[in-house]
Amino acid sequence: MGHHQEEHLKSSDFITDVVIGMSDGLTVPFALAAGLSSAVSNNSIIITAGIAEIVAGCIAMGLGGYLAGKTEQEHYQSELKREYNEVEHIPEKEMQEVKDIFAGYGISEQGQDVLAKELSQDKTKWVEFMMKFELGLEEPNPNRARNSALTIGIAYFIGGLLPLSAYFFTKTPENGLIVSAIFTTLCLFIFGYFKSKVTAQPPIMGALKVTMIGLIAAAAAFGIAKLVG
Amino acid sequence: MGHHQEEHLKSSDFITDVVIGMSDGLTVPFALAAGLSSAVSNNSIIITAGIAEIVAGCIAMGLGGYLAGKTEQEHYQSELKREYNEVEHIPEKEMQEVKDIFAGYGISEQGQDVLAKELSQDKTKWVEFMMKFELGLEEPNPNRARNSALTIGIAYFIGGLLPLSAYFFTKTPENGLIVSAIFTTLCLFIFGYFKSKVTAQPPIMGALKVTMIGLIAAAAAFGIAKLVG
Repeated sequence: MGHHQEEHLKSSDFITDVVIGMSDGLTVPFALAAGLSSAVSNNSIIITAGIAEIVAGCIAMGLGGYLAGKTEQEHYQSELKREYNEVEHIPEKEMQEVKDIFAGYGISEQGQDVLAKELSQDKTKWVEFMMKFELGLEEPNPNRARNSALTIGIAYFIGGLLPLSAYFFTKTPENGLIVSAIFTTLCLFIFGYFKSKVTAQPPIMGALKVTMIGLIAAAAAFGIAKLVG
Repeated sequence: MGHHQEEHLKSSDFITDVVIGMSDGLTVPFALAAGLSSAVSNNSIIITAGIAEIVAGCIAMGLGGYLAGKTEQEHYQSELKREYNEVEHIPEKEMQEVKDIFAGYGISEQGQDVLAKELSQDKTKWVEFMMKFELGLEEPNPNRARNSALTIGIAYFIGGLLPLSAYFFTKTPENGLIVSAIFTTLCLFIFGYFKSKVTAQPPIMGALKVTMIGLIAAAAAFGIAKLVG
């Protein structure tokens, strides 16, 4: 399994969570601030709205990540219980399911029989097999939910403060927007580059895509806010 | 595979995307508006900021969903190519991998040999087998990326407009916040209920969790914006 395994390790849960949090963190508060820059006349409203958005997004995404992790765990446990039940009470049906899985890959009836019989010798391994090959489920890390919440939340927070910081150090929304746009474009490009690296995508193309999403979102928010405001 | 299969059908890609978009859509714009209600004195700024946020979030999440779908597809195709290559050029190593997978489930060496030999008769099925059983990958739906982008974006848009609509029909941020909080709590509860139903979680508990996240995010945004503003 050598090189495949390594690649899976590289894009770990932690990195996935950082990417989830930072993608949205760099994009949405930046675009919101850009939108407000077209509609209001002082930086303090932009900063207030930006921070409110970052806090809201950070909690929504963090707690959302926590719940998703918990749900994944509960789902795994309930399916596990069900498989144990089935293996215990309707073993013939479960053996037929094993055979069906292998029939789909062109394994002969004789081969299917050998496999089903051998698997049924050890109920723990049999259930493990059904979990993975029938349902495609692997046991989630028990700390995943909590770690996920913290990582996504913090990544969103940091990602969101970067574009907003431009409004702290400038006096007008116009200047804030210019500094924020230049700085955030740079951040989006660097982030997109590393994101693509860890997910084994072409890095320059990936960086350009991430940057484009951020700029399109900001331009749309700017245009709409100008219309509404 | 009966009831498992049915459950997988129920929580389809479409529903997953609606849930992703609407969870954030109902929560973040609601919390942003609540936060601004504590810091500004008229509804028009809240509406402008809210709409800018919805547009930004909708594009960021929609395009984000599109890219994630495309990446999943590219990843599948590149791994598929690699497996074909391995099956072609290092078949002994791949056969050993098949044996190793089954050794892990307590299958005898004889059983492993039968399987590895039979699988290697048909390269297409062999590769399909390695994709699923070694790498845990299934072929993504080719329209998934585009559908995902549209569904997530639209769900976010609708989810975001619901809490914001309260500020259209009220005159002050205080009244807007009260109406928005009551209405959004109701929406969050109903959404959480159906979300739990389709993901086979206990519906009332699930509804309470989703509602709590929204209210905590809004309360935090309200408090922070009051401090900053």
